[in-house]
Amino acid sequence: MSKPLDLTTIDSELGELLELELDEVVRRIEIQVASDFAPINALCLHVGRYHGKMLRPLFVLLSGMAVEPSMVRPGDAHRTVAGVVELIHLATLVHDDILDEAAFRRGGSSINRLHGVETSVMLGDYLISNAFHLCSTLGNPAINLLLGRTTNTLCEGEVVQLHHRGDLDLDEQTYMEIVARKTASLISSACELGAMLARDEPASRQAMAGYGQSLGIAFQITDDLLDLDGQEHLVGKPVGRDLAKGKLTLPTIRALAALSGTARGRIVDLIQRHDRTALRAVLTEGGWIEAARVTAADLVTSARQRLDVLPDSPARAVLHVLADGVLDRSV
Amino acid sequence: MSKPLDLTTIDSELGELLELELDEVVRRIEIQVASDFAPINALCLHVGRYHGKMLRPLFVLLSGMAVEPSMVRPGDAHRTVAGVVELIHLATLVHDDILDEAAFRRGGSSINRLHGVETSVMLGDYLISNAFHLCSTLGNPAINLLLGRTTNTLCEGEVVQLHHRGDLDLDEQTYMEIVARKTASLISSACELGAMLARDEPASRQAMAGYGQSLGIAFQITDDLLDLDGQEHLVGKPVGRDLAKGKLTLPTIRALAALSGTARGRIVDLIQRHDRTALRAVLTEGGWIEAARVTAADLVTSARQRLDVLPDSPARAVLHVLADGVLDRSV
Repeated sequence: MSKPLDLTTIDSELGELLELELDEVVRRIEIQVASDFAPINALCLHVGRYHGKMLRPLFVLLSGMAVEPSMVRPGDAHRTVAGVVELIHLATLVHDDILDEAAFRRGGSSINRLHGVETSVMLGDYLISNAFHLCSTLGNPAINLLLGRTTNTLCEGEVVQLHHRGDLDLDEQTYMEIVARKTASLISSACELGAMLARDEPASRQAMAGYGQSLGIAFQITDDLLDLDGQEHLVGKPVGRDLAKGKLTLPTIRALAALSGTARGRIVDLIQRHDRTALRAVLTEGGWIEAARVTAADLVTSARQRLDVLPDSPARAVLHVLADGVLDRSV
Repeated sequence: MSKPLDLTTIDSELGELLELELDEVVRRIEIQVASDFAPINALCLHVGRYHGKMLRPLFVLLSGMAVEPSMVRPGDAHRTVAGVVELIHLATLVHDDILDEAAFRRGGSSINRLHGVETSVMLGDYLISNAFHLCSTLGNPAINLLLGRTTNTLCEGEVVQLHHRGDLDLDEQTYMEIVARKTASLISSACELGAMLARDEPASRQAMAGYGQSLGIAFQITDDLLDLDGQEHLVGKPVGRDLAKGKLTLPTIRALAALSGTARGRIVDLIQRHDRTALRAVLTEGGWIEAARVTAADLVTSARQRLDVLPDSPARAVLHVLADGVLDRSV
């Protein structure tokens, strides 16, 4: 498992607490997915390596503490919901690796490469199912309902993205809608649930949902940029896959919409030949990559502004830092 | 969509009622999966054709009416749960088609063939997610918990089956455990939930769970036999896929365990050459196919005996007929 963020550099006391809390979230996930069948446990052990910075669980825990600073530590329901959103995220990683034909994930082999498509499909299903089961142990129908709607939305985003694969006319609005659904929905719900479990009050709940929504879109735009101009050994997963699979990302969509004639034709040609290096050069030269970064940065600013309604607290400070971290994926 | 069973031949009044109820279940599923994205709706429309006899919804409805014969018709929660179990079943069909590399399903093209593996993965996920969301609308955590555990079990069965692909030493006990989990668990839960929603009383609930469990195993053994000796145009899906994918079924497992030397070597050779016709001939001659049919028939007898604790009613009579129908898949 890759190391979580070192939050102690932001706030040593809170950072240490969150480290312990994330350990507990991981333990809760491990207990949930444990099976009496050894092959299942071996697969889940491998998936355990996919935990990255555990941003989604962090958002659940921090949102709770930020809306209710009197909370000395996250509640038990927070830990469970944190485990649920992480399980959903892990399931999407396992299934995304099928979509991306990814051989690597977090610097190691993907389940897809090790065990084939079929096992990836069923293991992902097992994780989704366990997420819903773990969620149901809370006995709170409102949480099940919200997360069920979230995963509906998430899957819609994925299906519609596939539908537009190779579609050179994909417009920015549809791209944004796809990104909002497939990525931002779960991050937004993680924040909203964290708030809701700490303080059932609409204003702070909406603020946190809005923070997560804007941040999630910024996160995906930045992630898409990595596919275009990131370096494989730094990103920890294959780059250039979006291009190879005909998945258009923001700089390309905008360039195609704005240009015509030879200039547009040149970009179409580079996309069709999957020439990542030349495409990156053209899009950099035209300012399209920088413009996408500005859009992501604006979204991060919006996200941070949503925190203004919350009282000042160490948890809120960490949420600010995490927001900025979205733009610098080396964090 | 293929026509549901004509239950009016068993009991005209109840048969007509159930037909209307199943229409309502289908409508509930359609409303649940409807999206503001047209491509999703197009895919779901196609999956609508996968409804077959709608056995699982029927089990929910009939179990309720059988344990509580004073119920003139199934309750609203019954219809929703019937929709949930059908949605889970549809999701498994979409994902199973990836596993089986099936080009056809219910006589039409599979999503896998029409739209590729990636869309099948995500559409299946969308259906699973919608199943849990629909379930959550009931606001009854006990149902979420039971169905979450059921789908955990179902996925375990699928993963472990994949793990044993090509394993010529797969023993009967493990085969039975796989079948119990991947197929019987959902049928058993459909029956149990139907009972539970009508009358919260352990004896009838356990009776219906036991009926579904035995019937589910019998159903899968019979289904596996079709792959070996069924005819494609009657079965409505490709046959011989289990053999081609190294999935051992009951007659083969027993023959391999019982035989040794040349006799065993001959069967191993036929499996490895995927020679369905010759394998069927050898297994028929040795009585292994007939023995598997007897096992399935015994399980159906056990299932029917579980109904003895229930009062006599038209619903119970239909459950008896459905049990027998498992052995004759032309029903």
